[in-house]
Amino acid sequence: MQTERTTVRRLGERGVYDREEIYAILDEGLVCHVGFVADGQPFVIPMSYARVGDRLILHGSVRSRLMRAVGSGVPVCVTVTLLDGVVLARSLFDHSMNYRTVVVLGRATTIDTLERKREALLALTEHLVPGRTEHARGPSDSELKATAVLEMPLEEASAKVRIGPPGESKKDTDPAVWAGVIPLRLEADPGVPDDLTDDGVHPPAYVDDYAATRRRTIHRESE
Amino acid sequence: MQTERTTVRRLGERGVYDREEIYAILDEGLVCHVGFVADGQPFVIPMSYARVGDRLILHGSVRSRLMRAVGSGVPVCVTVTLLDGVVLARSLFDHSMNYRTVVVLGRATTIDTLERKREALLALTEHLVPGRTEHARGPSDSELKATAVLEMPLEEASAKVRIGPPGESKKDTDPAVWAGVIPLRLEADPGVPDDLTDDGVHPPAYVDDYAATRRRTIHRESE
Repeated sequence: MQTERTTVRRLGERGVYDREEIYAILDEGLVCHVGFVADGQPFVIPMSYARVGDRLILHGSVRSRLMRAVGSGVPVCVTVTLLDGVVLARSLFDHSMNYRTVVVLGRATTIDTLERKREALLALTEHLVPGRTEHARGPSDSELKATAVLEMPLEEASAKVRIGPPGESKKDTDPAVWAGVIPLRLEADPGVPDDLTDDGVHPPAYVDDYAATRRRTIHRESE
Repeated sequence: MQTERTTVRRLGERGVYDREEIYAILDEGLVCHVGFVADGQPFVIPMSYARVGDRLILHGSVRSRLMRAVGSGVPVCVTVTLLDGVVLARSLFDHSMNYRTVVVLGRATTIDTLERKREALLALTEHLVPGRTEHARGPSDSELKATAVLEMPLEEASAKVRIGPPGESKKDTDPAVWAGVIPLRLEADPGVPDDLTDDGVHPPAYVDDYAATRRRTIHRESE
């Protein structure tokens, strides 16, 4: 998947080109940042997404200017970033973050048939909330017609990963200064039902245990 | 701050152009996604940043191809996204996310003097870990010379915000289906000291209480 354009130049030791590791990062992320150019101006817009095999799936409204622009076959860049920690060094200069990020270059194409749009919508929802497709009403034909679905091949992609403690310059060795890592993670709080939901309806397990369910699913799929 | 290019077209009711709300989102985020164009290809790269008054500050190595590209005066887009929740509707079609995102368009310029670079590095560290600049060694001249610092005016910017429960189509009213929101937040775990730190050194309060310290600081600054 590595090409000249996706080769990580700076801090080259952080570059990752292994397909399995790239897929694991994509499967864990909830939002991607899609970059495209319009009238010479780059735009970077957050979107939800899903990986299906060796493709990324994006969706939006058929009336969306963003979907029309991204789906028109222009070069795009899709980036997914997971924040894992804040790195506190003894010098300001060596402060950093622990993170995993994937950059995908390519062009998106439009998925047109209702059947493939339906599959994509199911994949997007399962990516967002594993287990949810069992309990929610599936899309109608008119809903599918109102949905623009794009796909992008995962051909040109790379990951960059920083893990571990601060890398200090040799002169900063004072053991009385606390240095290290503050781990970060996306935490889910208990689900808040909407007004329509009956008081007696318990949240499904995938709501009560959202973060753990997603972790299990990602782990299983990337095995 | 609203211009023709930053006007939110789709779901216009989610558009926010209030400077205070835009600043609050920028102050809460830890990572931005920077978009720029090289050889017709857009690239989207995660970077840490800080807001200082009505400017965004970015930094990296002077040897970084990214910093050279972004700092060369080309049009760039900087986007910051905060994930607030997963929105579970009764129909797959109406699933969504709660989020706050800011898009900044403009051009970056290079900060050249050591004094202004020093100020920028202090701001970046205080943004990352409020309180940390008291305990870490400040940057040396040679470290400042190795650091490229860019600034970007916050002139052309907009935010887009989705909050609240699912918006259902009128036919999906089954009260036996659990629908609602799973709130998400970035959680910090207890700090992990590096090998150099003496066992008897307690983590500073801003490490023990990282998430709350950042929330307090953001709140105070945006008042």
